[in-house]
Amino acid sequence: MSENHPLVPALLASYKEDPRTVHAEKMPLPSREAVASIVEDMLDLLFPGYFRLQEIEETTWVTSISDILGRVAESLGLQILRAFRHEHTCFEGKKMAGEDQARAITGNLLAGIPQLRLVLGQDVQAAFEGDPAARNCQEVIFCYPGLEAVAIFRVAHELHKVGVPFLPRMMTELAHQKTGIDIHPGARIGPGFFIDHGTGVVIGETCDIGRNVKLYQGVTLGALSFPRDATGNIIRGQKRHPTLEDEVVVYANATILGGETVVGHHAVIGSNVWLTESVNPHTTVLMEKPSLRIRQPGTSSRES
Amino acid sequence: MSENHPLVPALLASYKEDPRTVHAEKMPLPSREAVASIVEDMLDLLFPGYFRLQEIEETTWVTSISDILGRVAESLGLQILRAFRHEHTCFEGKKMAGEDQARAITGNLLAGIPQLRLVLGQDVQAAFEGDPAARNCQEVIFCYPGLEAVAIFRVAHELHKVGVPFLPRMMTELAHQKTGIDIHPGARIGPGFFIDHGTGVVIGETCDIGRNVKLYQGVTLGALSFPRDATGNIIRGQKRHPTLEDEVVVYANATILGGETVVGHHAVIGSNVWLTESVNPHTTVLMEKPSLRIRQPGTSSRES
Amino acid sequence: MSENHPLVPALLASYKEDPRTVHAEKMPLPSREAVASIVEDMLDLLFPGYFRLQEIEETTWVTSISDILGRVAESLGLQILRAFRHEHTCFEGKKMAGEDQARAITGNLLAGIPQLRLVLGQDVQAAFEGDPAARNCQEVIFCYPGLEAVAIFRVAHELHKVGVPFLPRMMTELAHQKTGIDIHPGARIGPGFFIDHGTGVVIGETCDIGRNVKLYQGVTLGALSFPRDATGNIIRGQKRHPTLEDEVVVYANATILGGETVVGHHAVIGSNVWLTESVNPHTTVLMEKPSLRIRQPGTSSRES
Repeated sequence: MSENHPLVPALLASYKEDPRTVHAEKMPLPSREAVASIVEDMLDLLFPGYFRLQEIEETTWVTSISDILGRVAESLGLQILRAFRHEHTCFEGKKMAGEDQARAITGNLLAGIPQLRLVLGQDVQAAFEGDPAARNCQEVIFCYPGLEAVAIFRVAHELHKVGVPFLPRMMTELAHQKTGIDIHPGARIGPGFFIDHGTGVVIGETCDIGRNVKLYQGVTLGALSFPRDATGNIIRGQKRHPTLEDEVVVYANATILGGETVVGHHAVIGSNVWLTESVNPHTTVLMEKPSLRIRQPGTSSRES
Repeated sequence: MSENHPLVPALLASYKEDPRTVHAEKMPLPSREAVASIVEDMLDLLFPGYFRLQEIEETTWVTSISDILGRVAESLGLQILRAFRHEHTCFEGKKMAGEDQARAITGNLLAGIPQLRLVLGQDVQAAFEGDPAARNCQEVIFCYPGLEAVAIFRVAHELHKVGVPFLPRMMTELAHQKTGIDIHPGARIGPGFFIDHGTGVVIGETCDIGRNVKLYQGVTLGALSFPRDATGNIIRGQKRHPTLEDEVVVYANATILGGETVVGHHAVIGSNVWLTESVNPHTTVLMEKPSLRIRQPGTSSRES
Repeated sequence: MSENHPLVPALLASYKEDPRTVHAEKMPLPSREAVASIVEDMLDLLFPGYFRLQEIEETTWVTSISDILGRVAESLGLQILRAFRHEHTCFEGKKMAGEDQARAITGNLLAGIPQLRLVLGQDVQAAFEGDPAARNCQEVIFCYPGLEAVAIFRVAHELHKVGVPFLPRMMTELAHQKTGIDIHPGARIGPGFFIDHGTGVVIGETCDIGRNVKLYQGVTLGALSFPRDATGNIIRGQKRHPTLEDEVVVYANATILGGETVVGHHAVIGSNVWLTESVNPHTTVLMEKPSLRIRQPGTSSRES
């Protein structure tokens, strides 16, 4: 048996000193690899032929779908169980209940795929109608990162709604990593939702977004302030992100903040606008042009 | 023979209900995996020794280059054919024509590598001269995401120019995913182009960008409005993104919008500026400082 | 022996014409694959059980840590050697010195892990305290891209401090690619640092950041202007990025520029603010609200 590396004792001392940042000898967290694979399988079930499962033979594709369903059912069930067990740290005596609950949640998610597809079909149509560069719905599904991020969010949101810990956030972080679009799984978003380009978009946990809303890259729907309790700690769980009613459009790099901020239906928020108050329906909000300083040639030049 | 998963009938009904979001029993779309591999091979041909092909032996590297050329020729030809066949849905009777065209396009792209390298050499030089943190040209090629995104764009643009569907967008989306830089393959961009940091940059389909232009992270060159026809549908294909003449610099998070907006040569657009009108050559446009509200200690604090 | 592809001579001519963009028949650059693997191993050593090494058995995890230590020691030593040899182009006669130096740097980095963990423990705590959506410290380590980017930065910074070329930038670019957060390895950042969401954040080479600072997505800490020498070339190596003192908060998409700009302790910089001057301690800087133009329904509508 070989000896340990000479630095091992120093590391073990460090791990003992701050056990929060060590996750050994505990219930394992959900597997990152398994969750990534579940997300890819869900995309194949939602949009067969567009994602990982690209080459579908006429005679075998029903079998492929069936195989994926079986695989997700088993893998997702196991990961949900790991998430619950980890959350409750110890689950002795209630083991079977956990398994039953995990199986039920998985079954409901998969049985809900046709309903998810109805909503996602509206998202695809909204993307096609909203972007002059889109040539057809196939290009939207096949090439648009916004559609992929929204699809993954809608799956994660279903798990979030029924209280599954860790997994929803892991899923939306996979989408964030791939697309630069960061949607908290707790947000509520109506059908016909389109995010164009998308890099830098942040949608907070308690956002309420209506039907046929369109966002561009860099839009933040964030918190204005965090209520704190008497001892100065942040109070968690309150509505702190804005509400966007139906048919709202928010252009690139605009920032809309606050749980009491309501953007009325059919309102348009221009690029780079910083908004912390409610806006009436059908209103357009733009940056003032005179806020720019223009220097013509001849004056001393300066870079910013 | 095993039975199908019990949810298969419900899914098949859903797939039948919205066939736009299903891509089975059709001409296959280009393979994502193959296109990703083509992009990596092209980077190795453009900058040998910097990307995937890192360990080049003196005696064998010519053979490596030759092998990559042969591999790209075959794979790209096939993917172009898949893209064309899919676009025309059915191609019966014209099969050979499609193959000849795909082979010709592939051959032209590869034969154009020396020309692409001349342009990319100027891009590398511009990056080195434009960034005080760059220590040499090797670091720019090896470490700068902006250079990689621009190189992939230049390859995609060549395919876009000759009308190849799907593939150019797939390529620029691979770059977008990796770098956060979203350049539409239809944009026209002169040599000596440098994007520093780059996350969040969006360059629209009908942009015209001159020589030696420099952009920073978060810059949007976008559309101001979409012309619609009498029935309210967006009219596709018009010039709707700005023109940047030679030697323009645009700093972080500025937004320039509109197909008639022309930023004159040697103009400088400052950080966070929102610009929807043309700017004369040699002009500097900055945010006004007085647009800030400053609260000194003693007043009630507030977070935004 | 098979013949070369017919385009090989044209490519070789192109490679000869611009040798800057070719890296053949030279000391190899550090391996991208090896560096990516070193980064993953370092994350496992810093936060065991959270990253690649997820399933830790009680009886074997000490052995796993020991194995990783041994693997990193060997691989990192080799990559540092490649980086130094490449930097000095030729290293004949000093070969052993290079190996000794590489081994010493590697040993110091690994021996410094407990110290790094003390700092990262404060970063984790700051993230948990600063985000109402965070449910516990485990979620922060397991799911928050900001924490991962900061951890990789802290490792890269250690190598940057002792003058290792290429590798630190390769490491922070891996984090940039994954998280959209671009921190130059030369920046100096105190403990308790938290970046929320993070996409689009850019932190320049000569930034000085105090303790318990919090940044949101899209924040740029950048250069205002580049000093140039008499011949017009950029002077490299000067302080050109801002200083943020302790307990500063910078909200989404704010841009702070300039090497002489100092944001005083406990100051708050609001979303979308563009700041090029120093700010006193405890000050709040916000965008002026009247800089918006609001159009109520009835006026002609316009998109931006």
